[in-house]
Amino acid sequence: MAAIKVHGGLLSTATQRVLACLYEKGIDFQFVPINMATGEHKSENYLSLNVIIRVFHESNISRPPFGQVPAFEDGDLKLFESRAITHYIAHEYSDKGTQLLIPGSNKDMAVLQLWKEVEAHQFDSPSSKIAWEAFYKPFFGMVTDSAAVEENEGKLAKVLDVYEARLTQSKYLASDCFTLADLHHLPNIQCLLATPAKKLIDSRPHVCAWVKEITARPAWSKVLAMQKH
Amino acid sequence: MAAIKVHGGLLSTATQRVLACLYEKGIDFQFVPINMATGEHKSENYLSLNVIIRVFHESNISRPPFGQVPAFEDGDLKLFESRAITHYIAHEYSDKGTQLLIPGSNKDMAVLQLWKEVEAHQFDSPSSKIAWEAFYKPFFGMVTDSAAVEENEGKLAKVLDVYEARLTQSKYLASDCFTLADLHHLPNIQCLLATPAKKLIDSRPHVCAWVKEITARPAWSKVLAMQKH
Repeated sequence: MAAIKVHGGLLSTATQRVLACLYEKGIDFQFVPINMATGEHKSENYLSLNVIIRVFHESNISRPPFGQVPAFEDGDLKLFESRAITHYIAHEYSDKGTQLLIPGSNKDMAVLQLWKEVEAHQFDSPSSKIAWEAFYKPFFGMVTDSAAVEENEGKLAKVLDVYEARLTQSKYLASDCFTLADLHHLPNIQCLLATPAKKLIDSRPHVCAWVKEITARPAWSKVLAMQKH
Repeated sequence: MAAIKVHGGLLSTATQRVLACLYEKGIDFQFVPINMATGEHKSENYLSLNVIIRVFHESNISRPPFGQVPAFEDGDLKLFESRAITHYIAHEYSDKGTQLLIPGSNKDMAVLQLWKEVEAHQFDSPSSKIAWEAFYKPFFGMVTDSAAVEENEGKLAKVLDVYEARLTQSKYLASDCFTLADLHHLPNIQCLLATPAKKLIDSRPHVCAWVKEITARPAWSKVLAMQKH
């Protein structure tokens, strides 16, 4: 019986973020799927907050305060918020699997933190909105709002221009090593690749190479393989 | 000549967040005001990304990639993203002023990280939108969108319900000590207090007591005093 449990949905980008981190670290865990049949996952909230708004009535853990997935347990510790969970995993299991933190100075750590914040505050919103409109809505048989896609493609293009410049300076966003700043992008990047917004990646050579590199990681392949079962 | 420079605007909530942190730590710094006369600060982007979209042409530092304020310098280190800056200050100057980090276990750190993520991903969006509509728009002579205020008051009420429950368990959000998880809320909380959304705070006794406590901190008073000069 694994000490670590992840309660979530395989279609949830926030859940995928946590699973990718666990596979990078090579840590045993139990995945507890949340029944998404009640329909709340079809609401606009699904991606607008990058969470599924639902009650955890089928799990044995306390209901997370915002009804989010994923919820995470490591023994007595219960967490929510995907980026707080990956931060905990990277610190608590720093000696296992992929080294996801830059060891060393506060200045190197500040640069890592900066690019994590850029993902959360610049990349996440437009990429989540495009993923919702152009990936999840068609999947659920709903109609894409083309104007919303166009508006957010414009915003995302400006973010990716910054990434293109940054990735001429270092192989990954925070340094020459893969870190959480890169990993946090994976779920939304994977959605974008299945939409016309892929052109925004393809037209920027350094972004395109970075996307190929991070999506080819074995840990991420394991997350995608889970969706196929 | 102070080694630390903050380039920003005193009306910018992100700038205020960084200033509050510097005053908590009691660190000397130079504030470099950004000329906001070009009008970009009147755009919807001002609070929607919680940043002012503008070019740093009057500063001597490199232009931050997203044109944001504040930009931060500590010697050679240049940072942007307010929460990355406060994280750096708290770590680099851990021995000075207020102890803003919970020392100790990864589990305590995980709880701190969780509440920092809650501020960034649950509280920030509805509170920024209310601040923009009901505080900044009237200030700039623009017309408030009452429907947007109402919608976001509904969202904020749900967040504050969670805070009310949490604050029965601990004096501050992450622990019984004041941390960055609390500090990051200050700029938007101060705006809310000057709008009808103040009722959402007043009607929740633990939230109300927490707000009184954190807004009364001497460091925060110094930020407010800067606005009056």
